[in-house]
Amino acid sequence: MIPGPHTRNDGSCAFVVWAPTANTVELQIESPRPSRLPMKRDRSGYWQVLIPNTHPGTRYRYVLNDSLTRPDPASRYQPQGVHEASSVFDSSSFTWTDSAWRGIPLRKMVLYELHVGTFTREGTFDAVIGRLAELKELGINAVELMPVAQFPGRWNWGYDGVYPYAVQHSYGGPEGLQRLVDACHRAGMAVILDVVYNHIGPEGNYLADFGPYFTSRHMTPWGPALNFDGPESDDVRTFFIENALYWLKDFHIDGLRADAIHAIYDASPQPFLRELNARVAEFAREDGRPRYVIAEDHWDDPRVITPGECLGLGFDAVWCDDFHHSLHTLLTGENTGYYADYGEISHLVKCYREGFVYTGEYSHWMGRRHGRSSAHCPPEQFVVYTQNHDQVGNRLSSDRLCNRVSFEAAKLASGAMLCSPYVPLLFMGEEFAAGTPFPFFVDYSDPKLNEAVRSGREREFARFTWGGTIPHPKAEETFRSAPLRWEERTQGHHAVMLRYYRTLLALRREHAALGVAERSSVETTGDDQKKVIWMVRRAERERLLVAMNFSAVELSVTPPLDKVSWRVLLDSAASEWNGPGTLLAPVSTGEGLRLRPWSIALFILE
Amino acid sequence: MIPGPHTRNDGSCAFVVWAPTANTVELQIESPRPSRLPMKRDRSGYWQVLIPNTHPGTRYRYVLNDSLTRPDPASRYQPQGVHEASSVFDSSSFTWTDSAWRGIPLRKMVLYELHVGTFTREGTFDAVIGRLAELKELGINAVELMPVAQFPGRWNWGYDGVYPYAVQHSYGGPEGLQRLVDACHRAGMAVILDVVYNHIGPEGNYLADFGPYFTSRHMTPWGPALNFDGPESDDVRTFFIENALYWLKDFHIDGLRADAIHAIYDASPQPFLRELNARVAEFAREDGRPRYVIAEDHWDDPRVITPGECLGLGFDAVWCDDFHHSLHTLLTGENTGYYADYGEISHLVKCYREGFVYTGEYSHWMGRRHGRSSAHCPPEQFVVYTQNHDQVGNRLSSDRLCNRVSFEAAKLASGAMLCSPYVPLLFMGEEFAAGTPFPFFVDYSDPKLNEAVRSGREREFARFTWGGTIPHPKAEETFRSAPLRWEERTQGHHAVMLRYYRTLLALRREHAALGVAERSSVETTGDDQKKVIWMVRRAERERLLVAMNFSAVELSVTPPLDKVSWRVLLDSAASEWNGPGTLLAPVSTGEGLRLRPWSIALFILE
Repeated sequence: MIPGPHTRNDGSCAFVVWAPTANTVELQIESPRPSRLPMKRDRSGYWQVLIPNTHPGTRYRYVLNDSLTRPDPASRYQPQGVHEASSVFDSSSFTWTDSAWRGIPLRKMVLYELHVGTFTREGTFDAVIGRLAELKELGINAVELMPVAQFPGRWNWGYDGVYPYAVQHSYGGPEGLQRLVDACHRAGMAVILDVVYNHIGPEGNYLADFGPYFTSRHMTPWGPALNFDGPESDDVRTFFIENALYWLKDFHIDGLRADAIHAIYDASPQPFLRELNARVAEFAREDGRPRYVIAEDHWDDPRVITPGECLGLGFDAVWCDDFHHSLHTLLTGENTGYYADYGEISHLVKCYREGFVYTGEYSHWMGRRHGRSSAHCPPEQFVVYTQNHDQVGNRLSSDRLCNRVSFEAAKLASGAMLCSPYVPLLFMGEEFAAGTPFPFFVDYSDPKLNEAVRSGREREFARFTWGGTIPHPKAEETFRSAPLRWEERTQGHHAVMLRYYRTLLALRREHAALGVAERSSVETTGDDQKKVIWMVRRAERERLLVAMNFSAVELSVTPPLDKVSWRVLLDSAASEWNGPGTLLAPVSTGEGLRLRPWSIALFILE
Repeated sequence: MIPGPHTRNDGSCAFVVWAPTANTVELQIESPRPSRLPMKRDRSGYWQVLIPNTHPGTRYRYVLNDSLTRPDPASRYQPQGVHEASSVFDSSSFTWTDSAWRGIPLRKMVLYELHVGTFTREGTFDAVIGRLAELKELGINAVELMPVAQFPGRWNWGYDGVYPYAVQHSYGGPEGLQRLVDACHRAGMAVILDVVYNHIGPEGNYLADFGPYFTSRHMTPWGPALNFDGPESDDVRTFFIENALYWLKDFHIDGLRADAIHAIYDASPQPFLRELNARVAEFAREDGRPRYVIAEDHWDDPRVITPGECLGLGFDAVWCDDFHHSLHTLLTGENTGYYADYGEISHLVKCYREGFVYTGEYSHWMGRRHGRSSAHCPPEQFVVYTQNHDQVGNRLSSDRLCNRVSFEAAKLASGAMLCSPYVPLLFMGEEFAAGTPFPFFVDYSDPKLNEAVRSGREREFARFTWGGTIPHPKAEETFRSAPLRWEERTQGHHAVMLRYYRTLLALRREHAALGVAERSSVETTGDDQKKVIWMVRRAERERLLVAMNFSAVELSVTPPLDKVSWRVLLDSAASEWNGPGTLLAPVSTGEGLRLRPWSIALFILE
């Protein structure tokens, strides 16, 4: 049973809501013509009523036990926010123009994570459309939207959404999202949507009034966990699985990024997440083009990306924080909080070789042995990034990497990501070394909640030595500091960085040996003394060498290769990238190389 | 690091206790010569001190932060109960006489579950020894002891133990257990020990004073869960894994039965239970004889018995409640509580064929889809029973099956279990149709706790329609009603039942086609109308037919076989088993069979 209002061709609308513990449920139509209608319960606790002549835009709520009046948990649209009436939306009325769209294989994706509310000053889906051509030109072929489910207040990162099926009204609502996806597809770009199935935001969350969506058997950082394995959990699963399918089917979304699956507790033999992935895969098969589900997970657990038939969860890929942390510590020297677990050349080398860095070793941050080897998992299952919303925003000063390290080191970071055998993800603005921060912002109506968020973050940051005070998440200026300043991208070092990213992404497309690869075609070695990493990448017809200098000094080094001749494809230290100038001969047959501090050089071997 | 006091050959004793959050820990020796000694902390939070000339029997406690005085969580002996001082025990001083013991393969085991406190009137290990010859004669080759860890009060089932390493003093303490295991081995019997790694009993539980043994992230029916995947969980795991190895090594135990693993929460990539099983397997390899770990689990999850390398938990076998419930409902007609999910011939047939009955179907009891197919799991991984401590004791009247159904039906039940391809488990006394109940009993010192247990059970039983009031778990007469009355076994129907069990167990040994088998050698069919189940079992040289009539009427039935001739091996309806008399010809070539109500017949085919 799919929850929500379902408009039909004959103009009627079937309202379906799951409320297994209610004695009565009524549909209260608030406009255009107020009325209150009884609903009928089925055996599983779904209440239904069919209303003829129901126009999209009809406003309604449900009345539980003749006493509680609540918006629809499966509302498709909340035009006046999380506390007001739900609105009927007819997803089938949109005229799609993407029939030629065939999707993009995951291994070919270059992901670009963006927050609709701050990607542009307008903060809307339509404003995103206006920027797609530029993203395309940059080399992006997959836009990843931070969550768009209806959240409380005027702005939010999206992880406090309370109506998983309703598209944030201020972004442009559900039709706005359909327009954006359609435009992306016409531009040859996939759309990945971030979905939050681990908790429901704290304000406007009325789910518990309807049924056992939550269980006190497990606690998440946000309170009682969603009930995925207890009594009545089948229908809680249905609520979220149908949500996933709603995006894929009614919005033509190409894939989902499942937020923080480590906070989803489920000990059942057929876990919710495995079921979710199986249902998405089944839909993709029937629909005839690929769909993906990518996990965020903090366990470093290869089970996440192991097929369901082999007792895995069956995700297509997983975000690899280990790559970020290994790289970030080498570049910044930060060594507190979770960064204490990283900082050696060997960490990043292991990440290039295997994926997860923690494969059973003791983690000081976790306070226990952590992770399991992913050396057997194909590289296309790992998404890597030099920054993302978390790694920028969940820092005290919310500063991007490019504003934390030198321009040289920032270029090295981008190269380290884009020359990896993994699926790269850029965070909006990193391509032009955006000067704007990406602070955490909320806009709850309850002052206590806003303060709890602030103090919670203060506690979270206490294990880092960042110093200073955090910008108040509720302060309007905090939000106002976030929107990208697109004018930057034509100026000075911003413009150089943009050109540098374009060049790297073009190299990645042009060279078969770059991009996502088989493990056997990549060899990585490191020198902890000299702080150098070498990577040799092979394709059928070509061989590339990547040299990275993670030290602040100029180095003379010898590639770990038999004597070969090479041609320089790129040196991040070159003056064209505002660097101190390359020390490499354009073409050479020799033993030694001279690498500038914090530089990456890319060679094609003869 | 192994926690506890470790006596050495030179007479010294190394005291080791894990207390990572303590600022100071001191060893307080209370006898023979009182003293208080500082201990030294290592990096992982283990505190140690080596004391020369420490005799077994030395009484001690630990003083935490100069303020809390507590017994040792890893105490080997609590001669005065859970609240008093711990006592040094030297496990190496026992003189073992079982060097010829080579163990018994799991698939050959006939398990006999017993509760030391009520198996005999004496309630001691030594009194159990006195009964071993009889068990052996019955056909038992593996004694399964209900938990023996030190519990609060004078009597307890054992699941409220609070010192996992200390053997209950009133049973005879650790030396008593060593004597029992040694005697079992000399008698050719293995010993399986029930261990509780899902919670610690409510009285005398001082573990939280020492360290983060518990986590509030997960709640069990008994309170906050043990911390197996959070910060500091490595050493919580060590505490229990070393406990398992302690039994195998120092007590020569042949296997463990892990209680209620569904209440062990652990989302880590390398779960505690997988680690436990790997460590036990490693020990068994080194030690040169088999050791087993058998799970109690409520998920019907084949992952439990899947090897660790394949992302399973790696248990050797699992208790199969589905067998019990399928059988029990057919025999009793009970259909409330969890029995509502069973009651069809097809349930028992599926259990014979695959193991788990619930393989994704909706369970009314669980309120959700339940289980996953175990059809690929070898039969030796399933332990089946017509009753056990739970299925007898966790009923309102604590009545055994033989006192709930007719003598004919009780014999049918035993046959259904002993002709199954699974590992059978008998519950003490069932072999002579014991008249004594096995009620739940506790003996807490806190009246509130005793009342909470009583009312908790009342709530638990509310979903069944058993009626009446439960015997008060704390009442002395409740406990006193439980000890087996061994004199019964020579009298009337008790003696018949004992002879019947002996005969069945002998048949099982004598016929290669009976006993644990490959799935391919067993064919089971059922007739829901007639309430008949047929089972054909094959071995290299023989073929057996089992016919079971689960109806209250006499039936004329045709075996699902081509015309063959057969010889009757056993008919439970025969007058020698106090039955109404067999209707089967001893040897026959024919089409039809006549089965008495509630009877089982066993044939060898020509």
